[in-house]
Amino acid sequence: MVEQFFEDYEIGTRRKTFGRTITETDFVVHAGHSGDFFPHHMDKEWCATQEFGQRIAHGTMIFTIGVGLTATVINPRAFSLGYDKLRFLKPVHIGDTIHTEVEITQKTPDRKRDDHGRVIEATSVVNQRGETVLYCEHIYLVQMRP
Amino acid sequence: MVEQFFEDYEIGTRRKTFGRTITETDFVVHAGHSGDFFPHHMDKEWCATQEFGQRIAHGTMIFTIGVGLTATVINPRAFSLGYDKLRFLKPVHIGDTIHTEVEITQKTPDRKRDDHGRVIEATSVVNQRGETVLYCEHIYLVQMRP
Amino acid sequence: MVEQFFEDYEIGTRRKTFGRTITETDFVVHAGHSGDFFPHHMDKEWCATQEFGQRIAHGTMIFTIGVGLTATVINPRAFSLGYDKLRFLKPVHIGDTIHTEVEITQKTPDRKRDDHGRVIEATSVVNQRGETVLYCEHIYLVQMRP
Amino acid sequence: MVEQFFEDYEIGTRRKTFGRTITETDFVVHAGHSGDFFPHHMDKEWCATQEFGQRIAHGTMIFTIGVGLTATVINPRAFSLGYDKLRFLKPVHIGDTIHTEVEITQKTPDRKRDDHGRVIEATSVVNQRGETVLYCEHIYLVQMRP
Amino acid sequence: MVEQFFEDYEIGTRRKTFGRTITETDFVVHAGHSGDFFPHHMDKEWCATQEFGQRIAHGTMIFTIGVGLTATVINPRAFSLGYDKLRFLKPVHIGDTIHTEVEITQKTPDRKRDDHGRVIEATSVVNQRGETVLYCEHIYLVQMRP
Amino acid sequence: MVEQFFEDYEIGTRRKTFGRTITETDFVVHAGHSGDFFPHHMDKEWCATQEFGQRIAHGTMIFTIGVGLTATVINPRAFSLGYDKLRFLKPVHIGDTIHTEVEITQKTPDRKRDDHGRVIEATSVVNQRGETVLYCEHIYLVQMRP
Repeated sequence: MVEQFFEDYEIGTRRKTFGRTITETDFVVHAGHSGDFFPHHMDKEWCATQEFGQRIAHGTMIFTIGVGLTATVINPRAFSLGYDKLRFLKPVHIGDTIHTEVEITQKTPDRKRDDHGRVIEATSVVNQRGETVLYCEHIYLVQMRP
Repeated sequence: MVEQFFEDYEIGTRRKTFGRTITETDFVVHAGHSGDFFPHHMDKEWCATQEFGQRIAHGTMIFTIGVGLTATVINPRAFSLGYDKLRFLKPVHIGDTIHTEVEITQKTPDRKRDDHGRVIEATSVVNQRGETVLYCEHIYLVQMRP
Repeated sequence: MVEQFFEDYEIGTRRKTFGRTITETDFVVHAGHSGDFFPHHMDKEWCATQEFGQRIAHGTMIFTIGVGLTATVINPRAFSLGYDKLRFLKPVHIGDTIHTEVEITQKTPDRKRDDHGRVIEATSVVNQRGETVLYCEHIYLVQMRP
Repeated sequence: MVEQFFEDYEIGTRRKTFGRTITETDFVVHAGHSGDFFPHHMDKEWCATQEFGQRIAHGTMIFTIGVGLTATVINPRAFSLGYDKLRFLKPVHIGDTIHTEVEITQKTPDRKRDDHGRVIEATSVVNQRGETVLYCEHIYLVQMRP
Repeated sequence: MVEQFFEDYEIGTRRKTFGRTITETDFVVHAGHSGDFFPHHMDKEWCATQEFGQRIAHGTMIFTIGVGLTATVINPRAFSLGYDKLRFLKPVHIGDTIHTEVEITQKTPDRKRDDHGRVIEATSVVNQRGETVLYCEHIYLVQMRP
Repeated sequence: MVEQFFEDYEIGTRRKTFGRTITETDFVVHAGHSGDFFPHHMDKEWCATQEFGQRIAHGTMIFTIGVGLTATVINPRAFSLGYDKLRFLKPVHIGDTIHTEVEITQKTPDRKRDDHGRVIEATSVVNQRGETVLYCEHIYLVQMRP
């Protein structure tokens, strides 16, 4: 646990996570967890007849695992409000390996709460070829130093 | 499979999914799937000492299951680009039951591709008390009628 | 949800589901779910010494997934009584892709309940080579129109 | 591994398995494995408004686990052909404990293969109140003594 | 990743992990992962007739999760050889919350490899009442400073 | 269930289990169960740059599955105290097939309880090449004949 107040965040701070290979197991687990069994994710024969040629990871899975990879440090002063500009930029296939890179890109006082600010953490999920496959902006509400 | 071109979408069309009870199992599965074992989701003793009092669902899980509930109809002409304004509005606890309500709220021609348009599907995940717990705007790229 | 009374069923109505590739993950999940870890399903070295040469899917798994593929439409007037003539016709191996084809083949008034009838849905699970790997007859008890 | 030829089976032989409590986890795992997320199994709020009052186990799950409980002894001379008269006799709810009782009830020479016979193992899945919740007849093809 | 050579370890260094509530889900997942469905872990009715009164966690699960909780820092100079004196001191039941406490208790040069030493990390898994439920001594082979 | 008192154990009794292929699925399930997502187990790209070249199974997994394979016979007079000399002797990779061999190697009266003895079961987990990958000594406390 690392306590960080709004004042402690610095624009430009970067962090890079470990990597994780996305396996066929993850596809099956995510289908079973989400209830989405669309053939794009589950039917390799049908996929072979389509332009993309092979099974494509669920967008919600790459988001879940990509964000999950960053969950190594808890800041008790920060609280996740949500995400903006979540985009699926490239497909992820079975056997690809992803890691996540985050960077603090914005700090603004919160409009409603005097004692809090908003911090934007730009989040890029990157594959083994260095391509960004998913991008989003994580919005944190962070307490100011008392 | 229901084929729908850009022209076929109508602003105001609504759909409501089945419900699904969020179980302790889902919490454990999501931790194991995402790799996020933060005590907010996993340690009921610690949670009992905090303001929120009990384990809170991962944001990525409510997003995954909330969106997954809508995955019942495939439109081969539509393609998910991502999401905007994803917000966690209320915590979800073990035993809550959620369903999802979607509504077509916007249609605009795509700037880069003459033969495609963008359709916004406002997505609200709602609990058993009628409270919206998660909101986001799903952005589809949809082919125009040839 | 599509309401259908006994009178609404028509002999010969057919439906075909999406496909799903049966993965090594499904084998492992099914063993862990059922508790059946027989080497026929779990030990590729031993299987290589047998006539069938490779791991064979649990019969209960092909039944579960084959029937599960049909679970897309709820009829609140129908109730599953069970199955007759469940037969494992061909082995299913890791990497095979199955889909299910159902056909209404019989309608008879129920002997015990005046206001209900029995509907038989012949269920065939078919692999990527068009071979029926599992067959069964699903027996529904369906309410008659009041 | 216990080798038993057709001649070794005796009508009336009975076996009773260990018990297993059916948990909410099993419901969630089975939904994710089968792809069947019908509210009868997954939505406790909706179930509370129905006659049956609470979530009901998938029929395919009670079959899978009930049969799985019997998978403790391998007979290399026997081969499962399928099941007859599979019936769901009582609902199974979260927290019920089931075990399985099997009995050899029939032996007949196989019509097509001179050197094999068919053995019927009547299979009853029984809950903690002694009620049979599922019944089926397991059909084995068994080699005759050479 | 925190690089630590043999010389960097100090006797008496302690670390305490986050907590994790052991759920019924973990029991079911562990049975399915290990293949051990003994009624001690799976049959609540039978357990109620025994001296211990309720389901008991698998020893291998408390070991797996207890050790897993410590897996937050990688030392590229250390390598796990195994464990000594692994003891199950108290039963763990559904709903208990455990955390792990580790302490460096021994450092000795390795007999076979001049440039390595052995470090013992005493590992205690502790429940919500402060009782040690599992104890073991983790043996690391650690490279000496070149 | 096979009842065996302390007096019934004989030094030198051996037992060999079925085999089980360790799959990529088991790696993913174990990471999710234990919370240990270290790149040694999860990142095939990084592993390819290391001396060991490919993903290595978690030690706790081989212990869990290796011991789980032996869980086929319950002795109501024996109680597991723990393990000594647990050693990881060889890495296990995706696709390896393991089985377990146990042998009763020691019997001693228990120092604290007059009516119990300790039995040591030497446990070796062996791969498809006949190499012992894990060794440990399982310590049982066994009731003496009354």
